Amino acid sequence: MITLEQAQTMINVALAKGVEEGWKPLSAVVLDAGGNMQAFARGDGAAPGRFDVARAKAYGAVMLGMGGKAQMARAEAQAYFMAAVNGIYGGQTCPVPGGVLIRDASGAVIGAMGVTGDTSDNDAEAALAGIAAAGLSGEA
Amino acid sequence: MITLEQAQTMINVALAKGVEEGWKPLSAVVLDAGGNMQAFARGDGAAPGRFDVARAKAYGAVMLGMGGKAQMARAEAQAYFMAAVNGIYGGQTCPVPGGVLIRDASGAVIGAMGVTGDTSDNDAEAALAGIAAAGLSGEA
Amino acid sequence: MITLEQAQTMINVALAKGVEEGWKPLSAVVLDAGGNMQAFARGDGAAPGRFDVARAKAYGAVMLGMGGKAQMARAEAQAYFMAAVNGIYGGQTCPVPGGVLIRDASGAVIGAMGVTGDTSDNDAEAALAGIAAAGLSGEA
Amino acid sequence: MITLEQAQTMINVALAKGVEEGWKPLSAVVLDAGGNMQAFARGDGAAPGRFDVARAKAYGAVMLGMGGKAQMARAEAQAYFMAAVNGIYGGQTCPVPGGVLIRDASGAVIGAMGVTGDTSDNDAEAALAGIAAAGLSGEA
Repeated sequence: MITLEQAQTMINVALAKGVEEGWKPLSAVVLDAGGNMQAFARGDGAAPGRFDVARAKAYGAVMLGMGGKAQMARAEAQAYFMAAVNGIYGGQTCPVPGGVLIRDASGAVIGAMGVTGDTSDNDAEAALAGIAAAGLSGEA
Repeated sequence: MITLEQAQTMINVALAKGVEEGWKPLSAVVLDAGGNMQAFARGDGAAPGRFDVARAKAYGAVMLGMGGKAQMARAEAQAYFMAAVNGIYGGQTCPVPGGVLIRDASGAVIGAMGVTGDTSDNDAEAALAGIAAAGLSGEA
Repeated sequence: MITLEQAQTMINVALAKGVEEGWKPLSAVVLDAGGNMQAFARGDGAAPGRFDVARAKAYGAVMLGMGGKAQMARAEAQAYFMAAVNGIYGGQTCPVPGGVLIRDASGAVIGAMGVTGDTSDNDAEAALAGIAAAGLSGEA
Repeated sequence: MITLEQAQTMINVALAKGVEEGWKPLSAVVLDAGGNMQAFARGDGAAPGRFDVARAKAYGAVMLGMGGKAQMARAEAQAYFMAAVNGIYGGQTCPVPGGVLIRDASGAVIGAMGVTGDTSDNDAEAALAGIAAAGLSGEA
């Protein structure tokens, strides 16, 4: 289980990482192991619809048990499968880096983080920084 | 315009108010003037679906330009109207206290806060405490 | 956490209870703590759409943290609120008995069971029988 | 017509097949000839969103009267057609192996099974094992 304090640490560290690196403003969400919302923040200056992208990245990851990189590999190999998955989950998936599984010390998936705003790879790097700062492990 | 720092202050103060008062765990959202997500936090121990209720309270408020108390009065007088509004906005409204308009010093609506978890009246009180702590004015 | 074996026990005992009592054919679902599907069975002879009702009873219970009886009391007192909640959750709620919270020995909500097919009170009784047979506690 | 006992046999045998083979945890659904839910089970350790994928595999099969392999061939030849089908059925299709038509002794389609969790081919093999154990014929 992720505490709210951990979720807020993840988000604040991820957004601060983007500022330090000079990236575009980031937005970040943390979902629990059941795909439900725990916390979200949209960086100042980010586009208004960034919540939906951040959540979709995290939602697809936790629902399928696959990080964004694995989803992107599957989309490259079999685009129609990931397109169908998007329909299956009501449009709430986004198969690119930035959706990151969160694991506890035992390796169990306890949620997912979704970051959006800069390049997908930078989004994933920001998520991993946030997850590490909360003492947990991320699978991008 | 609400900054992320203000939005996080509103949310953290609202949740802390609930803890101080011994209320059930609260969840709180801040939407901007366009009804889009700025920040959210679900208090530890809150039911998993509280995000949806918090957002609907805030969304209905900002989209209609009516706080939750005014919406509830309308629902008491004309339930079918607020039921239609719920359909009109895709289910994203909740006509009870806890959805609070946020105004700046000039009186302009710059967003809305939605709080859920305890009684509707306590939810609204927590939202007002959060909005005041951010130096803004709330209309419950 | 509910195991699949426990979920199947709950469902089989609930459906058998209906047969023993001579009730109409029951259908039953078990959701986890995040509102996601674990197991379902539709009794022979039940109407084809019973899955949706069973799941909605369980989904509203776990998402709100309220059993069906508490939801029904709220609907009796403030019908427009539970109507709005139905919209908020995309139509996936049903505020009558038969949606039952499942708690572990520590009192934590670990999921919900939804039963439908006979009277709402009998549906709830079948759910409670199933939950007890799995060694857990139900809150109807 | 598929009895609940047959549906539960199919599901339990399919999930046991995955355990015997050392595959990732499987989830399996049985739909009737009208595309409506009869039974479902999510294997312990499976990702929380596996129900939606299992149901979509089965739903597309029974609604179109095409097994997952035939759907995949069509997607390989004409991806935009299967993408349109996904939209037509509200996102509830998945054109890969693991969606299997169920036929009775006369050859009539009496439902469909959907299995997900391991590779698509292994998913289909598990479904066929389950359907055979219930004395019926599968078309993958």
